[in-house]
Amino acid sequence: MANQSQAAVERAIATRRERVNQALPEELPDTEPERLYEATRYLLEAGGKRLRPTTVLLVAESLSGVDVDPETVDYRAFPPGDGEIDIMRAAISVEVIQSFTLIHDDIMDDDDLRRGVPAVHREYDLSTAILAGDTLYSKAFEAMADTGAEPDRAIRAVGELASTCTKICEGQSLDIDFESRDAVTPDEYLEMVELKTAVLYAASASIPARLMGEPEAARSLYGYGLDVGRAFQIQDDLLDLTTPSEKLGKQRGSDLVEGKQTLVTLHARQQGVDVDGLVDTDSVEEVDEEEIEAAVDRLRESGSIEFARETAQGLVESGKANLEVLPDNEAHDRLDDIADYLIEREY
Amino acid sequence: MANQSQAAVERAIATRRERVNQALPEELPDTEPERLYEATRYLLEAGGKRLRPTTVLLVAESLSGVDVDPETVDYRAFPPGDGEIDIMRAAISVEVIQSFTLIHDDIMDDDDLRRGVPAVHREYDLSTAILAGDTLYSKAFEAMADTGAEPDRAIRAVGELASTCTKICEGQSLDIDFESRDAVTPDEYLEMVELKTAVLYAASASIPARLMGEPEAARSLYGYGLDVGRAFQIQDDLLDLTTPSEKLGKQRGSDLVEGKQTLVTLHARQQGVDVDGLVDTDSVEEVDEEEIEAAVDRLRESGSIEFARETAQGLVESGKANLEVLPDNEAHDRLDDIADYLIEREY
Repeated sequence: MANQSQAAVERAIATRRERVNQALPEELPDTEPERLYEATRYLLEAGGKRLRPTTVLLVAESLSGVDVDPETVDYRAFPPGDGEIDIMRAAISVEVIQSFTLIHDDIMDDDDLRRGVPAVHREYDLSTAILAGDTLYSKAFEAMADTGAEPDRAIRAVGELASTCTKICEGQSLDIDFESRDAVTPDEYLEMVELKTAVLYAASASIPARLMGEPEAARSLYGYGLDVGRAFQIQDDLLDLTTPSEKLGKQRGSDLVEGKQTLVTLHARQQGVDVDGLVDTDSVEEVDEEEIEAAVDRLRESGSIEFARETAQGLVESGKANLEVLPDNEAHDRLDDIADYLIEREY
Repeated sequence: MANQSQAAVERAIATRRERVNQALPEELPDTEPERLYEATRYLLEAGGKRLRPTTVLLVAESLSGVDVDPETVDYRAFPPGDGEIDIMRAAISVEVIQSFTLIHDDIMDDDDLRRGVPAVHREYDLSTAILAGDTLYSKAFEAMADTGAEPDRAIRAVGELASTCTKICEGQSLDIDFESRDAVTPDEYLEMVELKTAVLYAASASIPARLMGEPEAARSLYGYGLDVGRAFQIQDDLLDLTTPSEKLGKQRGSDLVEGKQTLVTLHARQQGVDVDGLVDTDSVEEVDEEEIEAAVDRLRESGSIEFARETAQGLVESGKANLEVLPDNEAHDRLDDIADYLIEREY
């Protein structure tokens, strides 16, 4: 990816993230019960790249056929001109679903930190975290049912959001199961990632097309999201191994320490590497950097890092091919760039 | 309530419960991941009166204007004749929401038993219970978005289901807050019950009217559900005090032992009764029946039991008045009877 494209995509994301952040309080008002609603906003306010809502906005922009100024366009009456779809509300709906899944996942995984702050069940308590997630869940459906899109299109968008949530739960269930299984194959892992992570990217790409009455484009765009969503997760796994801790914001190699299965370790296991023996330490606090370095070298020798990188690269290419249904315009280019960006980012 | 009406309402509920139970496996298929889907079905299969889905079916029957045979009518192509609404799917949607809330509530309340079997987080584990609830949540929206009703009606039904779920979460949050507060007023209690319990009755009564294109009837029916739903909860609280343990299926007076706030105890507190001192025991296992008997006598003397009974009775009357929007037919009569039944039932 050329430096110029990288700068353009980072700007494209930053501008839309800012718009999403401005709109979020309007969709999650500060009402009673105070502590509950504070907890629903807590993780959303802690940060996040907003890649999914940005995808919603970019697809809608591209399908509108006109180049819009993302800093000033009215996303609540879309497409520009005589459009009446509140596409911002749809964008926030998927971000809110993402936030709900993170809050509940952190409980299930017993994780203490998220986005550099305590997880919701640590900052508040278990009940509040369960309930904050449940509230975000219904808020997302309230939002998606109220975009002002034509009812036949709106009901399909809601149906797609619902089936997406079901798949996310299935993916999380598989992920938990994998922890107690040795013989997970790379294909099983990719299926889990598809369900747990990629389907929400897929919905983010297809739902704006549904709302705008382009069901055929929606199908291709779903494919785009499915591929780049999987590539995104593989890149996340790679970054854990290859990015210095300072840059990563957490201990490098923590997945290895915690024995998490990733495409890299599953490939290595198939190559006969003793993955469980790579790192002796079993606490992230006591990690020996040299031990991690040696483990990563071993995974490089077995071709496992290269295998994961190539898999992600292949997914990005097949994902981008699905963008052909979009008009040739700037938003289309940025969706193309985002796919590359997801596997080239360093944190 | 005459014995004859009571028999008719019990038969009406039993027949429709049977139909709902037959249809449930079709909406919650037995698929992968096996353990997750087993957990989603576990509580639903353990029993339940199915009052909410029965309300959905009865409202649809009444609005159809024809008397149907509930044992044989095709609820999946409603109204009979040329209707195309899968009203059974809408009925199951609200029951599935009810089941999700029970699973998550039992985690938050740290309850061990539900419907005479271990709570889902006890039978399985915390993660599976959270995830089973989350899966039921999306399944309910998948179902409600796919009834075949006209899209403009369907999208309103989905929106109403979503805002109902938000209110249920708010109600549960208030209920948790109340546990650590002394000065809860009866009005605050009734507001909590409205959100936590009654709104799902209200949605069960109004959603079929929305799906069938009767928005004005929907508003009245919502009022019906809101009133009888609150009456239902007050009756539940009364039964805990007045029904023998064998009949109740759990220790009589357990709410008193656990210090739960109810309309009865809140009224008594306002009358100057030392509610916290009524029962010394603080474990349901060590309850002294005579102590419970004396406590109930004290609550009777303060007029608190009568106050709760009259409040429930008043709600049932105002609720029934809202049924006037329905045609005069058998299903209408049964909805009328159900309101009475809810406060006359003995368990």
